[in-house]
Amino acid sequence: MTEDAFLASLIARIPAVSKGLAIPPGDDCAALDLGDGRWWLIAVDQVVGDRHYVQSGPAATPPELAGRKVLARNLSDIAAMGGVPTCCLVAGAFGPTCSAAWLQRFYAGILALAARFEVAMIGGDLALTPTDTVVSLTILGEIAAGKAVRRGGARAGDEFWATGVFGDSLASGHHLTFEPRCAEGAWLAGRGYAHAMMDVSDGLLLDATRMCRASGVSLVLDVGAVPRRTAATTLQGALSDGEDYELIVAVSPEAAPAMARDWPFATPFARLGGFAAGVPGVWDRQGNALGQGGYDHFGRGSGGGA
Amino acid sequence: MTEDAFLASLIARIPAVSKGLAIPPGDDCAALDLGDGRWWLIAVDQVVGDRHYVQSGPAATPPELAGRKVLARNLSDIAAMGGVPTCCLVAGAFGPTCSAAWLQRFYAGILALAARFEVAMIGGDLALTPTDTVVSLTILGEIAAGKAVRRGGARAGDEFWATGVFGDSLASGHHLTFEPRCAEGAWLAGRGYAHAMMDVSDGLLLDATRMCRASGVSLVLDVGAVPRRTAATTLQGALSDGEDYELIVAVSPEAAPAMARDWPFATPFARLGGFAAGVPGVWDRQGNALGQGGYDHFGRGSGGGA
Repeated sequence: MTEDAFLASLIARIPAVSKGLAIPPGDDCAALDLGDGRWWLIAVDQVVGDRHYVQSGPAATPPELAGRKVLARNLSDIAAMGGVPTCCLVAGAFGPTCSAAWLQRFYAGILALAARFEVAMIGGDLALTPTDTVVSLTILGEIAAGKAVRRGGARAGDEFWATGVFGDSLASGHHLTFEPRCAEGAWLAGRGYAHAMMDVSDGLLLDATRMCRASGVSLVLDVGAVPRRTAATTLQGALSDGEDYELIVAVSPEAAPAMARDWPFATPFARLGGFAAGVPGVWDRQGNALGQGGYDHFGRGSGGGA
Repeated sequence: MTEDAFLASLIARIPAVSKGLAIPPGDDCAALDLGDGRWWLIAVDQVVGDRHYVQSGPAATPPELAGRKVLARNLSDIAAMGGVPTCCLVAGAFGPTCSAAWLQRFYAGILALAARFEVAMIGGDLALTPTDTVVSLTILGEIAAGKAVRRGGARAGDEFWATGVFGDSLASGHHLTFEPRCAEGAWLAGRGYAHAMMDVSDGLLLDATRMCRASGVSLVLDVGAVPRRTAATTLQGALSDGEDYELIVAVSPEAAPAMARDWPFATPFARLGGFAAGVPGVWDRQGNALGQGGYDHFGRGSGGGA
């Protein structure tokens, strides 16, 4: 079973709730309607030692960067809705290789990025594990009611835009040092340019496929236009490596010229294709299905139990 | 370093924030002021396989009960503030012993208890680990502004009351099947009876010591009055085993008779001592210091690295 399939089966069993739930589970964040013109965004994401960073040994990730990553991943989810992050809670379950010094540095990494994004750490929990280190972070953010951008709003005819460059995130260290696109996301949402938006964490193809499915449209991707991280980055890497933490956006063709003209950021932002009516999925301009590629966090391969 | 000491050092480094933070970190929940007469309560707690339940083998915990536990622990934190739980997010990092069937049953256990407490599951994340299973749950709740009961409000002269019975939680299975005291906590907070309140997760002595420290008072505990779970439960077990998930409450002596008379629940509720001026800590009626007992989630013993 894939992560997407498991989540779908789980969400199907969740009672239809609830008063005040403006955006239900299944998007980058859920949204709660405060009833005063504000929505609160909320999401949770986690890092696992030796999966999302190197826990120990000569190639060990500096603990500050491991801590930074768990917050940055969550900031990217707020960015994907167009919101402004406000506060977080951190639940850490630490394995025996985590010394007191490691822990202090890990939390220092969270707090340094939190200070820069003006995010308050308002709670947490500590536990020990027999072996692995797992840290989850819950992020809250704010946005004007109705302004949050969901992944399901792309329409046939919309252009497909993306921030940044893609591929080789692990090899380059990008996955530890990336800048969450909060300012860019808030700008796109605030000006109403984005019909649909999400962040790319599991690879451009897989996350674009998710946007297509949520929106009920297909995507023709101009694979030659996908910007690659380095000269050595392969097309396959750019499409499927994952951990890019860039934003992909559906924009109406009428609005795109003004958006491109007014874009105030140094961050690269480019048109990489267009949405069309048809079976949800990603195709190249020659009509070849590109598949999903990407990284399924939940797959153990075809013989796996989960 | 103990969990309390590490958290204190961490909290000291968190920037003094933030607009709308009505109750800062360090209590059972933080509270955010919505500005419309409501506060939102928020907390996170986790379960670790083979620490908080048995992951596999002949004595394995039924996955429904492991899932139930992670939500119930969090409901107890909402109860401790006097709030009403509303929604939750679940971040699960699952080890290789978790089959698809195990996962379905684990989440079914969460959802069944969530339905009974009218808690919506509004988000989550899934990951895999090399070995351990760690699941964190973030809970949100609601309470009228200013009505949340903190742990630091006990005054010299207050009576010390507790719900339920204590000890042998692991041996009896109580830690998997306990009823979070949400109704009791909301009643105590709503009627204004509780000067201070918290839940007992790490043992009566340790959590009462925390209440004493937060309040700047000492507690004289009537050890003979502490109700024990079974006839075989030792006094030491009742004082220190932990995982009781009962509420301890500081009540003014003037209000206590009306509170006891009007108590509408079948849950046992008894006076177990009284607060006095003095060094924070717990003493018996003969003036002997009882120590802290309890379970420090974060201690690895005196030689430990964390």
